[in-house]
Amino acid sequence: MATGTRDRILDTTAALFQRQGYAGTGLKQIARDAAAPFGSIYHFFPGGKVDLGVETIRRSGRSFQAIVTAVWDAQPDLERSLRAVFDGAAEVLIASGYADACPIATVALEVASTDEELRQATAQVFAEWEDAIVARLAPAGVPAEDRLRLARSIIALLEGGFLLSRASRSPDPMRMMGETAAALVTR
Amino acid sequence: MATGTRDRILDTTAALFQRQGYAGTGLKQIARDAAAPFGSIYHFFPGGKVDLGVETIRRSGRSFQAIVTAVWDAQPDLERSLRAVFDGAAEVLIASGYADACPIATVALEVASTDEELRQATAQVFAEWEDAIVARLAPAGVPAEDRLRLARSIIALLEGGFLLSRASRSPDPMRMMGETAAALVTR
Repeated sequence: MATGTRDRILDTTAALFQRQGYAGTGLKQIARDAAAPFGSIYHFFPGGKVDLGVETIRRSGRSFQAIVTAVWDAQPDLERSLRAVFDGAAEVLIASGYADACPIATVALEVASTDEELRQATAQVFAEWEDAIVARLAPAGVPAEDRLRLARSIIALLEGGFLLSRASRSPDPMRMMGETAAALVTR
Repeated sequence: MATGTRDRILDTTAALFQRQGYAGTGLKQIARDAAAPFGSIYHFFPGGKVDLGVETIRRSGRSFQAIVTAVWDAQPDLERSLRAVFDGAAEVLIASGYADACPIATVALEVASTDEELRQATAQVFAEWEDAIVARLAPAGVPAEDRLRLARSIIALLEGGFLLSRASRSPDPMRMMGETAAALVTR
């Protein structure tokens, strides 16, 4: 079995979760889209869909964080970083026909009350995102007591932007959320 | 067939969508939880799950809007309205074990790229919420050019609050989003 099969299964699962969520994604579709034998899913993920789900959430969370922080860190100040992140998200939405959005949110909402193991994986991802943003707010001069709230607000605005832009098939909500995020840090 | 059956089916579907999403909710579970004959679903909703989904989204959207605006309008000013809405949402999350959240968001994310009819129903709900908030920002003195962006930001913060509070099983994110929303309108 090629070493690339596991990665292909994870990449395919991540893309399907992002577009149609956890419950709507079946292992048969994953195997087919990943061009992987059905049995290979259980070979790599003995616990089946939940095992695969947990690993996909962790991997997608790190991958999304790496993309966002790369865009963020390429800008010279906090306000421009935030605008670049939200405008970039709007461009990704347009380019993907409003399909490529947050890789965690849909699954997080689906599993919050239905699967404790998956819920904890999503909570861990959000906590890592919060830490990454808090670490970037400190050197920008945001007071310590405001950092966690602002980090969460930025994540909420990004997630809300994905929700409203995908529902309306318009980049406008996401771009507006970028204006609000920039306004929050330049008060 | 009792006139109450249709309402029971819709109430049950709304609760299940809220907790586990669209794809994770089967018609058999709906019939069982609603104590309705399976065939009654097709009697009232000839198009099956999509028909029922569209009507549930519309009904849940109006119902949630009525609850939020009742809390909002009971306060004497905009800042206190926003704090009451977000603190109230935090209390609902605690009381329901983090299950009762936005009735639309999970479904909206699931269907945005998979079902055009359901997507349009969610977009219509969000547009009605935006209108209801814009109508309340005007008399509070928010400049016309900021109203839509602020209304969308408030919805995004509420949705992000549900997401982060449900994932972490803590009311703190939702309460913090209330602080941010209040800060946005009192700048």
